[in-house]
Amino acid sequence: MIAGIDIGGTNTKFGLIDQDGNVLFQDRIKTAVHSKFEDYIHELATAIKAGAQQVAPDTPIRGIGVGAPNANYYRGTIEHAANLQWKGIVPLADILGTHFDAPIVITNDANAAAMGEMVYGNAKGLKDFIVITLGTGLGSGIVCNGQLVHGFDGFAAELGHVIVNPNGRLCGCGRKGCLETYVSATGIKRTVYKMLADHLEMSELRKISFDDLSTRMISEYALKGDKVAKDAFEYTGQVLGSKLADTVAHTNPETIFLFGGLAMAGDLIFEPTRRHLEKNLMTVYREKVKIEPSGLPNQSAPILGAGSLVINHLNYQSQQKV
Amino acid sequence: MIAGIDIGGTNTKFGLIDQDGNVLFQDRIKTAVHSKFEDYIHELATAIKAGAQQVAPDTPIRGIGVGAPNANYYRGTIEHAANLQWKGIVPLADILGTHFDAPIVITNDANAAAMGEMVYGNAKGLKDFIVITLGTGLGSGIVCNGQLVHGFDGFAAELGHVIVNPNGRLCGCGRKGCLETYVSATGIKRTVYKMLADHLEMSELRKISFDDLSTRMISEYALKGDKVAKDAFEYTGQVLGSKLADTVAHTNPETIFLFGGLAMAGDLIFEPTRRHLEKNLMTVYREKVKIEPSGLPNQSAPILGAGSLVINHLNYQSQQKV
Repeated sequence: MIAGIDIGGTNTKFGLIDQDGNVLFQDRIKTAVHSKFEDYIHELATAIKAGAQQVAPDTPIRGIGVGAPNANYYRGTIEHAANLQWKGIVPLADILGTHFDAPIVITNDANAAAMGEMVYGNAKGLKDFIVITLGTGLGSGIVCNGQLVHGFDGFAAELGHVIVNPNGRLCGCGRKGCLETYVSATGIKRTVYKMLADHLEMSELRKISFDDLSTRMISEYALKGDKVAKDAFEYTGQVLGSKLADTVAHTNPETIFLFGGLAMAGDLIFEPTRRHLEKNLMTVYREKVKIEPSGLPNQSAPILGAGSLVINHLNYQSQQKV
Repeated sequence: MIAGIDIGGTNTKFGLIDQDGNVLFQDRIKTAVHSKFEDYIHELATAIKAGAQQVAPDTPIRGIGVGAPNANYYRGTIEHAANLQWKGIVPLADILGTHFDAPIVITNDANAAAMGEMVYGNAKGLKDFIVITLGTGLGSGIVCNGQLVHGFDGFAAELGHVIVNPNGRLCGCGRKGCLETYVSATGIKRTVYKMLADHLEMSELRKISFDDLSTRMISEYALKGDKVAKDAFEYTGQVLGSKLADTVAHTNPETIFLFGGLAMAGDLIFEPTRRHLEKNLMTVYREKVKIEPSGLPNQSAPILGAGSLVINHLNYQSQQKV
């Protein structure tokens, strides 16, 4: 039995997973209520232990995987996370380690999603693939030769911050024209508003404020035939597909998986993304790279992803011993 | 003792290397004189065996590494190489294998350069780095977690073909605006000619035909203060540096090594590349990624690079046996 923890800005989801990937127990606590990080971890550890006591009192927790924003795999830290209340460098693995006698593996949430896809999802058996998570921003995890790419400093795979247009939309990172300002739940809202500003089409979307607008609404209006909503998906797929052609020229993945809210729009996003990727690929890559939905269930994906990190770690250790 | 072979469009360089990386023997044959691939390999194998007989008659050749354009690591083939006279898919490893009883490892020349940098050059001990070869085109080899990234299909690391501008310069690959149309020996010549067309500055470069112009001439004029030549280097560094910011967001390398003719221009190319990379990086990467010259001697680099492929292969095999 292992534990998976997904730390988000609002909620922290956690659960216990058996060796076949069944989620035995799943719960959440508020991330944002504790000003002291130690108090937050104490509540989290207590809740995990209570869950373990409930579902399998005699089974030890063999490892803990954590997905968190700005998590550093090498250092076991969360570093300068914009969406968390704890500032600076937070020694997550050290503090969590005072509560558990088991290995702890930490990485960012998109890397966890990639590892989850490999262990439990549609990337089983693949050695070279990429997972793109489309939420408020755009996250990514890159797997090459069957291993997560962490980079020398632990910050690889920030595909949300490749540049679409150096004079483009302002990004939360302080630069302009990053991919996630176009391709994400927020990105497609910005595209809708840009189109409403630039064009004259009638659209039901003109009745909805920016703050009220959601990806699901844009999907629903697109399916009803709203031209602005349809054009917004086409544009989003064009930007994503054409930038992914550059990504393919880096690591030549077999499949790129799309995960998260925007990916739930199905063909509305997959079809234009595939078409524009294909159109922009160099000949040697054409008709070879697949863009597919994630195979992880949306609800338990963050926990499975986080848990898979430590599964992989334990498997690697046992191989090294042989 | 191992053999390294570098197959180019005009010449094939080959040599014998001892375990300390000393080149014991080095020679070349013409690549382009044989219409039959088998005849070419026969001449090459005969020359390598004669070399071995000359320098170390009692030492067996323990492995052969080959760098070649469009070489596929997984399949041991050269596939659809535009600059070679043998068309289609050429079974290089199989045919070379009829002449030698030793493992043969094949990859493209830029991957060979990256492996050479790791085994014999400035990337010793690095686990995450990139080598960019600046010749007629722009080649690259990406190393993550201490391993070459080959991709699922063997065609990873085609950084010469990421897109700078989708409406930009025509590329030999059939698309528009690829990085190598700006950043390569040919790319900087195109930039010089574009500047001579667009601007009115006096320049000694106006006296030189496109075919006669070389990177070395552009360097020499830039050092003498020629504005067009200086601006051409500035622009080349700007394009390279800003696109490398996207590359850093993929694999977070510790160092990017520049190799080849254009890199010989020294600060003329390194200084603007570093400056524009730094300017375009996301905060988390700033002041961390180095751009450095290759540590391989220009003359024997292709042979050392090719040889290092099989050194790495033999080391990996012996580790697996333990």
